[in-house]
Amino acid sequence: MDVNGLQKAQEALDAEIKSFFNSAPPLRNIEDIGKDLRKFVEFNSPQAGNQSARKVVCVTSGGTTVPLEQRCVRYIDNFSSGHRGAASTEYFLKAGYSVIFLYRKGTRQPYCSLLPDDPFLECLEFTQESGIQARQPYSEAVKNAISEHHAAIANGTLLKLPFTTIFEYLQMLHLVAISMRSVGPHALFYLAAAVSDFYVPWESMAEHKIQSGSGPLDMRLVQVPKMLSGLRSEWAPMAYCISFKLETDVKILLEKADAALRKYKMHMVIANELLTRKEEVTLVTTNEKIHVRRDPKLVGDNVEEHIVKHIVKKHSAYVDNFDHKVSRASGS
Amino acid sequence: MDVNGLQKAQEALDAEIKSFFNSAPPLRNIEDIGKDLRKFVEFNSPQAGNQSARKVVCVTSGGTTVPLEQRCVRYIDNFSSGHRGAASTEYFLKAGYSVIFLYRKGTRQPYCSLLPDDPFLECLEFTQESGIQARQPYSEAVKNAISEHHAAIANGTLLKLPFTTIFEYLQMLHLVAISMRSVGPHALFYLAAAVSDFYVPWESMAEHKIQSGSGPLDMRLVQVPKMLSGLRSEWAPMAYCISFKLETDVKILLEKADAALRKYKMHMVIANELLTRKEEVTLVTTNEKIHVRRDPKLVGDNVEEHIVKHIVKKHSAYVDNFDHKVSRASGS
Repeated sequence: MDVNGLQKAQEALDAEIKSFFNSAPPLRNIEDIGKDLRKFVEFNSPQAGNQSARKVVCVTSGGTTVPLEQRCVRYIDNFSSGHRGAASTEYFLKAGYSVIFLYRKGTRQPYCSLLPDDPFLECLEFTQESGIQARQPYSEAVKNAISEHHAAIANGTLLKLPFTTIFEYLQMLHLVAISMRSVGPHALFYLAAAVSDFYVPWESMAEHKIQSGSGPLDMRLVQVPKMLSGLRSEWAPMAYCISFKLETDVKILLEKADAALRKYKMHMVIANELLTRKEEVTLVTTNEKIHVRRDPKLVGDNVEEHIVKHIVKKHSAYVDNFDHKVSRASGS
Repeated sequence: MDVNGLQKAQEALDAEIKSFFNSAPPLRNIEDIGKDLRKFVEFNSPQAGNQSARKVVCVTSGGTTVPLEQRCVRYIDNFSSGHRGAASTEYFLKAGYSVIFLYRKGTRQPYCSLLPDDPFLECLEFTQESGIQARQPYSEAVKNAISEHHAAIANGTLLKLPFTTIFEYLQMLHLVAISMRSVGPHALFYLAAAVSDFYVPWESMAEHKIQSGSGPLDMRLVQVPKMLSGLRSEWAPMAYCISFKLETDVKILLEKADAALRKYKMHMVIANELLTRKEEVTLVTTNEKIHVRRDPKLVGDNVEEHIVKHIVKKHSAYVDNFDHKVSRASGS
């Protein structure tokens, strides 16, 4: 594509993104979210003399829904337990990052990744003598989950923001990205959420529940505009950006990851296949492909721990390089 | 429709149901479910000399999913928190019923209806001095939820069976219905689950993740066969059957409920509208329409408590009438 063609494609995408946001139902609690974000980013910002300054990562987690009716009864959903995002959040916190955890309501929470699906009823019991206590074998895991989760929120290093629909998710990601600008290259995006590729534009959506009176249901879904380009080039141009590629067909996986890396100018794409994603992934950058695998013989070894270790190194090098450029530019 | 036409329609429906079950992916844990069901029903069965005999209700709760891909990444879901089913289960247990709670994984659980969405992290705290304890103001609610929930399971009056897809739900409902036959008219079905009307037949489903390469996505969904007829006429012909009708358009609600009552020969249809469903519903039977409403001035007054009270009365009358017929038939 020549320069003219590229510019036209960019303008078309910008128009699509604008139209998506204009027609989306507005966020209900936008002011509270904005306030929480400002406070959180300020607390962690690397401004002169800030003792609490930390690198900040936005971890997105869980799937987005696409409503099929305005008064939503039916929707399309993307399968994601949120395990990857929740476990990675723990390792980012351990590595000294502050985390904005943008998660689908009801999905897995940080520090709860070792617990069963419904820990409240599965892990607790009540006796007249001792009150509420954890059942064996969950005693340690429950204690750690509750205390570490609450500690991270109390000490200002974990901010949790829940979403449900694709409309909420993209508007919130936009807000987060803009508010993270002040963190400069210390900002990291770790986009593990399973985001819908297709949606029904709000204005063309049925108001009421679709009736099942007679015959089959035909639906036309249009593509969600590719917001990653906007994130990289406009929303948070200095941040280090990592997206995920999930496929069920391993034959096209790396090719797809490579294409995403180039197309959206990501710094890294993490390629994972549905059935083996808890065992291994490939970290794809322009220069290399790093194959990461958990050790199945090591109890408690998680693939997320290895992923985060690699990322922390890459992000550090990115920040150093950035600082170096700035110091050369300023002649110091 | 004449008798011939009716019979043809019935045959067509039977063929549809058969084809649905034949093409559905089989339940993974079918043997365990069967064993649990047999044990539970036997324990509660009104056979001679059974001290633990109770009426048995199958409460279905939460929404079913419709996979769009065989290796499921995307699916269509029906919105339902499961609050209605969970709260109703508590009142049925209180009224002396045993409950088979057929629920969507991750939805609201019995005795937890007063707690926030994520009670594990929201309601608990950990201190070195006292260990795990409930935060204020949840202290009483947490204690009751955990102790009553576990007590109901331990004393054999609550059996929980989780499902996710429409394929799992309908196969499990079928198993439950068949195993409840021995309870005769003492069996009640309270079908509060939000069941998909449309689905993609397994064999016509994409194996791999649908690619978002280019252009819009067109989908054709076919109707899920109406299993309520099968439930009433074949699976559990002696049971008292109640289904729900949810609409977002109040103008067509009662008409729809009436139609469902006649079409599927339900004993009762509970009509509810999306926005007001926690405040009021209408119980529709062939003879009457009972409008039920919670008292908003009474703290803790739930519409489910009123619904269950009415049902218990109707079901009692149904059982008495049944026994009366049997005793007349046997000449005693």
